[in-house]
Amino acid sequence: MSYQVNDKFKLFTVQSNPSLTKEVALLLGCEVGKSSVKRFSDGEVQIHIEESVRGADVFIVQSTGQPGNEHVMELLIMIDALKRASAKSINVVIPYYGYARQDRKARSREPIAAKLIANLMETAGANRVVTVDLHAPQIQGFFDIPVDPLQGIPLLANYFKKKKLVEPVVVAPNTSGLGRARRLAEYLNAPIAFIDKRHPEPGFPQSVQIVGEVAGMNAIIIDDLIDTGATVTLAANALADHQVASIFVCCTHPVLTGPAIDHLKIAPIEEIVVTNTIELSTEKYLDNMTVLSIGELLAEAIYRIHKEQSVSTLFK
Amino acid sequence: MSYQVNDKFKLFTVQSNPSLTKEVALLLGCEVGKSSVKRFSDGEVQIHIEESVRGADVFIVQSTGQPGNEHVMELLIMIDALKRASAKSINVVIPYYGYARQDRKARSREPIAAKLIANLMETAGANRVVTVDLHAPQIQGFFDIPVDPLQGIPLLANYFKKKKLVEPVVVAPNTSGLGRARRLAEYLNAPIAFIDKRHPEPGFPQSVQIVGEVAGMNAIIIDDLIDTGATVTLAANALADHQVASIFVCCTHPVLTGPAIDHLKIAPIEEIVVTNTIELSTEKYLDNMTVLSIGELLAEAIYRIHKEQSVSTLFK
Amino acid sequence: MSYQVNDKFKLFTVQSNPSLTKEVALLLGCEVGKSSVKRFSDGEVQIHIEESVRGADVFIVQSTGQPGNEHVMELLIMIDALKRASAKSINVVIPYYGYARQDRKARSREPIAAKLIANLMETAGANRVVTVDLHAPQIQGFFDIPVDPLQGIPLLANYFKKKKLVEPVVVAPNTSGLGRARRLAEYLNAPIAFIDKRHPEPGFPQSVQIVGEVAGMNAIIIDDLIDTGATVTLAANALADHQVASIFVCCTHPVLTGPAIDHLKIAPIEEIVVTNTIELSTEKYLDNMTVLSIGELLAEAIYRIHKEQSVSTLFK
Amino acid sequence: MSYQVNDKFKLFTVQSNPSLTKEVALLLGCEVGKSSVKRFSDGEVQIHIEESVRGADVFIVQSTGQPGNEHVMELLIMIDALKRASAKSINVVIPYYGYARQDRKARSREPIAAKLIANLMETAGANRVVTVDLHAPQIQGFFDIPVDPLQGIPLLANYFKKKKLVEPVVVAPNTSGLGRARRLAEYLNAPIAFIDKRHPEPGFPQSVQIVGEVAGMNAIIIDDLIDTGATVTLAANALADHQVASIFVCCTHPVLTGPAIDHLKIAPIEEIVVTNTIELSTEKYLDNMTVLSIGELLAEAIYRIHKEQSVSTLFK
Amino acid sequence: MSYQVNDKFKLFTVQSNPSLTKEVALLLGCEVGKSSVKRFSDGEVQIHIEESVRGADVFIVQSTGQPGNEHVMELLIMIDALKRASAKSINVVIPYYGYARQDRKARSREPIAAKLIANLMETAGANRVVTVDLHAPQIQGFFDIPVDPLQGIPLLANYFKKKKLVEPVVVAPNTSGLGRARRLAEYLNAPIAFIDKRHPEPGFPQSVQIVGEVAGMNAIIIDDLIDTGATVTLAANALADHQVASIFVCCTHPVLTGPAIDHLKIAPIEEIVVTNTIELSTEKYLDNMTVLSIGELLAEAIYRIHKEQSVSTLFK
Amino acid sequence: MSYQVNDKFKLFTVQSNPSLTKEVALLLGCEVGKSSVKRFSDGEVQIHIEESVRGADVFIVQSTGQPGNEHVMELLIMIDALKRASAKSINVVIPYYGYARQDRKARSREPIAAKLIANLMETAGANRVVTVDLHAPQIQGFFDIPVDPLQGIPLLANYFKKKKLVEPVVVAPNTSGLGRARRLAEYLNAPIAFIDKRHPEPGFPQSVQIVGEVAGMNAIIIDDLIDTGATVTLAANALADHQVASIFVCCTHPVLTGPAIDHLKIAPIEEIVVTNTIELSTEKYLDNMTVLSIGELLAEAIYRIHKEQSVSTLFK
Repeated sequence: MSYQVNDKFKLFTVQSNPSLTKEVALLLGCEVGKSSVKRFSDGEVQIHIEESVRGADVFIVQSTGQPGNEHVMELLIMIDALKRASAKSINVVIPYYGYARQDRKARSREPIAAKLIANLMETAGANRVVTVDLHAPQIQGFFDIPVDPLQGIPLLANYFKKKKLVEPVVVAPNTSGLGRARRLAEYLNAPIAFIDKRHPEPGFPQSVQIVGEVAGMNAIIIDDLIDTGATVTLAANALADHQVASIFVCCTHPVLTGPAIDHLKIAPIEEIVVTNTIELSTEKYLDNMTVLSIGELLAEAIYRIHKEQSVSTLFK
Repeated sequence: MSYQVNDKFKLFTVQSNPSLTKEVALLLGCEVGKSSVKRFSDGEVQIHIEESVRGADVFIVQSTGQPGNEHVMELLIMIDALKRASAKSINVVIPYYGYARQDRKARSREPIAAKLIANLMETAGANRVVTVDLHAPQIQGFFDIPVDPLQGIPLLANYFKKKKLVEPVVVAPNTSGLGRARRLAEYLNAPIAFIDKRHPEPGFPQSVQIVGEVAGMNAIIIDDLIDTGATVTLAANALADHQVASIFVCCTHPVLTGPAIDHLKIAPIEEIVVTNTIELSTEKYLDNMTVLSIGELLAEAIYRIHKEQSVSTLFK
Repeated sequence: MSYQVNDKFKLFTVQSNPSLTKEVALLLGCEVGKSSVKRFSDGEVQIHIEESVRGADVFIVQSTGQPGNEHVMELLIMIDALKRASAKSINVVIPYYGYARQDRKARSREPIAAKLIANLMETAGANRVVTVDLHAPQIQGFFDIPVDPLQGIPLLANYFKKKKLVEPVVVAPNTSGLGRARRLAEYLNAPIAFIDKRHPEPGFPQSVQIVGEVAGMNAIIIDDLIDTGATVTLAANALADHQVASIFVCCTHPVLTGPAIDHLKIAPIEEIVVTNTIELSTEKYLDNMTVLSIGELLAEAIYRIHKEQSVSTLFK
Repeated sequence: MSYQVNDKFKLFTVQSNPSLTKEVALLLGCEVGKSSVKRFSDGEVQIHIEESVRGADVFIVQSTGQPGNEHVMELLIMIDALKRASAKSINVVIPYYGYARQDRKARSREPIAAKLIANLMETAGANRVVTVDLHAPQIQGFFDIPVDPLQGIPLLANYFKKKKLVEPVVVAPNTSGLGRARRLAEYLNAPIAFIDKRHPEPGFPQSVQIVGEVAGMNAIIIDDLIDTGATVTLAANALADHQVASIFVCCTHPVLTGPAIDHLKIAPIEEIVVTNTIELSTEKYLDNMTVLSIGELLAEAIYRIHKEQSVSTLFK
Repeated sequence: MSYQVNDKFKLFTVQSNPSLTKEVALLLGCEVGKSSVKRFSDGEVQIHIEESVRGADVFIVQSTGQPGNEHVMELLIMIDALKRASAKSINVVIPYYGYARQDRKARSREPIAAKLIANLMETAGANRVVTVDLHAPQIQGFFDIPVDPLQGIPLLANYFKKKKLVEPVVVAPNTSGLGRARRLAEYLNAPIAFIDKRHPEPGFPQSVQIVGEVAGMNAIIIDDLIDTGATVTLAANALADHQVASIFVCCTHPVLTGPAIDHLKIAPIEEIVVTNTIELSTEKYLDNMTVLSIGELLAEAIYRIHKEQSVSTLFK
Repeated sequence: MSYQVNDKFKLFTVQSNPSLTKEVALLLGCEVGKSSVKRFSDGEVQIHIEESVRGADVFIVQSTGQPGNEHVMELLIMIDALKRASAKSINVVIPYYGYARQDRKARSREPIAAKLIANLMETAGANRVVTVDLHAPQIQGFFDIPVDPLQGIPLLANYFKKKKLVEPVVVAPNTSGLGRARRLAEYLNAPIAFIDKRHPEPGFPQSVQIVGEVAGMNAIIIDDLIDTGATVTLAANALADHQVASIFVCCTHPVLTGPAIDHLKIAPIEEIVVTNTIELSTEKYLDNMTVLSIGELLAEAIYRIHKEQSVSTLFK
């Protein structure tokens, strides 16, 4: 497929996803916009947009994850600079939306940071948000500007479809991920199961139950993100105890913090499939890790937005 | 317990929950504020607040369900009237938050009505929202004003605890209700199961699987609301097919529309336990239905808000 | 005259005026946009826009009258859906603006619902409003977005001009309608009169005076809307008592609620002239009723807005 | 009656109504707050509030009429200063609301200045508006903050009641003032009439008709304001031509610009009754002019607002 | 250079700068938009835009200085009229931004009028601001809409460069103008000095020190504006006392109020160089005054904004 | 002096200034509010407020400097949590306002980050800001909520007054700091001088001139902050070259990044006087450094705000 963007189209990146942005630019046949994003010696973000954006439809690619505060502030300051530089529209492409897990008051007197971030972006001047696999789809409603929610699960599903696993079972590693598991299961025409963890009274160990049939099957654990790896590792171990034939793990967002890599290395996992919504440093690659690129998906979506064509038909 | 509200406290109802509001007023030892809520002959809402609310902390009790549009408009117009009548604060107590199921774009080019309603209430002039068991907890984040989310599940749990069912199992009638099922299961120290429905290719019947063990057990199906009754009826039938000992159904919000009552009457359900967040007309009562009142819960929460005491400690 | 709208023009209707919208579409040579506006079983509005509106200038035709709350909520939810579907501009064409009579606090502690509705539409995301014969022209100022106020009176005036009534007199049925009567009188070069009703002390009947000369003349009663018909019926009877030659009644908005049709049937009225800003059900047609279509007016106005041409010159 | 305001009550004036404000302060038993309102040599407003207003409920008395732009800007700048000085609430008392006649687009491409002024006051930081006899009651709805609309007509009515005129008739000098005339007529239990002016084709003189009976009666012309005096003078002359017994003129707001005084001097008017919502310079006093003070009305309203008591009961 | 604006470009003036606007129109090869800006007899601004601006990119040229309140209100009302007339964008070109000196709370309980004015313009509906030499560059940040800050200093610098003064020294007449002095000094490659005034204890005269070398040199005093002339006159006299060879004065904005002309006439100043951001009445011209036109600068900037080209490159 | 705060007063800190907050709490005789501010493993801020703040006037002490992005995000999230926890007012005490130097577009297409931060805080829910020695006083105007600007210079001035230096001269290290220098000079009744740096053409060294007399005098260099130390070090060296008797350096905000400490160690500076608006790590202390505490100033200001007393009188 060949794209042709016009001269009022601008694609910028800030600092979280330079490779992905380059890939998108290559696909779209355009250059990444010239800007300088540095730090003053006290750490304050110093942004200078080095080409005119007056009247342009600007797309910024920036995940707001680790280091989340730096990436959020960079993004907000970039938006402010573009607004004051008379961009016609500011379209924020956020492959990984950080702070998404703080999407409700889990306890009293907690923030709803995912809403705060949404408000901050609108205040700064964003006109549209494009995201991939939000932690909860309700986060779309945190915005009053249009949100184009892209789906990474079909990418993962296609990958596993090609694998043609015998007797697959999709496993949600906790109760809140069941919807996601079910969507993958529908793609693969597979049954589902989930891990039910309970925190009993003090002094007693956590109980872990597998609800659903898994013995002898090829299990695919799916989550939206892998952070410390504790959740999927525990799920993998529980599955191993229940005589599954093999264990695959997949997620859209490889957050992979703290001891994640160490945990994943020794877990009974055959393959870990992730996407590049978060740019992985080399020390986070494992031999059994497969990274699928969402570059084509982003390029196609950005192009359709630019050309004012339907984005939803992408997922039909 | 004895409450003492001061003379700047006002409790109003619009039209959805007159009985519940009276119960709350009785508990708080106050009168329901005098207002007239009528219809002009063309159906437009005609509201007149018949006592001064200048400088008062006003609480309005109004569910926004069936007829949802009427109740939403009544509420918005009431808020407008109170704002223009110089109320000091307008606290909206919404036992049942209608439109909550439209909390994300399920398909492209759909509204997010639950967010729209939140925006409308803030625009009209609401200063605080008190709700019970929101369809998704993320809806809290649709508001930028404080939300006090009350919990009806403990009320249901207590009721079932007293029943001392042998070998109970809590069943989620679909994947999205699993979190709710798990919370009840924790209260009752029971295992969980869920119903996995699949819509296969055209021409084939829907498949219904029960994931988890249920045979011989006393099943409690839980949902946040029962609307047409199709979901719980299907779940009850599936459980009956799997030799459960007995079937209970519970929910916070008895929406009960269309053929719901007819379905529930003939379903293999021993008891249906609901609360009075929605005022039931007599034709919607069934012999095996138990209605628990959230009146005390609301009274206590309203009192604490009025007295500026912690509301969260209510649920510890 | 031939119109040519471009492919970024979209015309939608919700549920109040399907015939009028079709007429407008026919005149403009376009299709009515595909959308589905249904009800869930609990009455909640379910909207799905079935074609891409990305980047389009969308016009929605929807009167917000009877059932007003349903039509207002439909409109707001439609606007929300269009906004989230990335419409470029959302132009709300409201032939009859319901709640317009609540345009001030007539008594203390009443809402100003007409302003509330305006605020709600702006909050939902409307970019422009097109209306016909607002109850009070000041309602234009309730909006901060552009309002294009169309005039139905010239349509009525033209109709009566062609009738060439001998010795016509235009009659306002109450004091607040005098401005409207005067505008029609200017078109017809006729004198005016008005009905002065007084509510005396309890126990005494209402007094009705006609101020101005009417005897022997052909009277045209004009109002912006006829609701219960009480006002025009009382006026007609008073005129009949004063030996007028004949009585005509006209209005822009035939609200016609409750006993209106019964009242009008037996009133001494020769002809009732209305427009189709409100779609009349068949039981509301009377033999002596003439319905003028505002379709051409709307089509022309919508076309000029689409083409960025002056709308005001329409009324010169 | 004795008032007692507390130490968090502050009453300020800017520059339009110093005498009225002093009268109000005297009635309330408080001092007018110390502030300096000057002009820099280039005419810019220079405001300094000379006492702490932190946490205070501040009332500012300022009419926004002639010179309207100066008075509006003074008021806005005063509000800004009070907001930044941490006033708890800013209550704007506007005896005469200038620009009120620009309350709709009379022609295309005109501003709605009355709405603009409302928006500007809210933007500056006003929390409440108190006005007297707005040009159109709909202007209340231009605000989203509470408006307390005070009524000057009862003051005028009481004055004429005491006069015990024989056979009074209330006359509206044009069609738009008929509602006002009717309210006065109800107080006096008098009939009404109005002046119907037409602007015929070029080359023909304006036609002036009196609609209603006036011969031999004592006519009271009422308007909300007298500006150039042309309207009431023309009405008075027309009435004189129709053999009225005597002519009185009354209005709430004596704007009296340009040739007003010269016109009024020679018009056949027995007495002109106005209020002090606008402070009259001595050259604007005529021998037959009576000025009624709204000081007590304002003092009572301000006191009730301060004490959070009903204001509407003032007019029952 | 030849410009070609398209038919959706409109240039309007209000009342402060008719000549400058005509010059800009001439340069751009367009007409000044037809509008009528008058006063009602009570001084209220009466604006009527006499040609369609629907869908147009409108530029309004209006300085907001003397009479500042009149000019600010005219501008706000003009913006309101344009917004309601469906202009696509409203670009406010403010050669001289009045109230700019009130840009912080110099004393407690003072307004920040420069921010207030910015808020008022955004509230009225402005989409962009173009200014020349703001009193403080931070005022840009008072806006959330794009601001294009044009620079008048290069115009002044070029003029002095051509003069080829021997041993020039640039003098700031007070501490706050030092940044401006330094920028001119850099253009001229000249040293700088400044006047240090101290207000000692009561009873003692003000002390005036010149900090920096000036004796025998040709001094150029620079300020952003000359208001009463007191500051530059005092500086000129101090310089004369220190044996400078000659004294030039320059500023961007010739406010020139009160006794300014009298002071300047007798001050030891060889030449006063100003621009036409403020239109000077003839009595404000002095023989030794040179007025440089910013017309070309404005025309170029407006054209680039219209054509969506970089404005900043104007100053490289 | 003894303070007594009431039980609706709460003082919180986030993470930038724990010691200063404790000092303020001690002075006010209250506890620091219990809250937990941690990091998730991916670095996201995790805040939990551990005591009820319902109806409380909350003060948060948090500088937004180094690491600025972390501290800004912590503050915003804290504000969000407090807002949702129903705090009555949220008063943000920012001893050092980071990003303040980005207060205008120095080049085209730069952000105005200081305004962005202000907008973000208002969006999050802040009701008041208290700051110390803003980089530019105009930043006050970036807020629409009340700002209480505290002054650190009197603290520095008092310290130097007690030193009774012979022949002091206050030196601004660049042109923009001259206002600040002049204020200190007035306190000390001393003359001023400043450093004029020029960046000549490429290939030539920077030129540094001292404007004003300094030889043989005791110089006090003052700036609002010391960041890399380059500016004051260069100034100190220039002064040393001009035979000053001794060199003192003072500033309010010791940012001290990168090589600052190394530069300052070897510079010819007798004493460096700073305040504790930024909490210094031990490696940033130098032997010749004096840290003055602003604790008393903050305590007094917070108390007055709490008690609704004038804050400005603090500086008379």
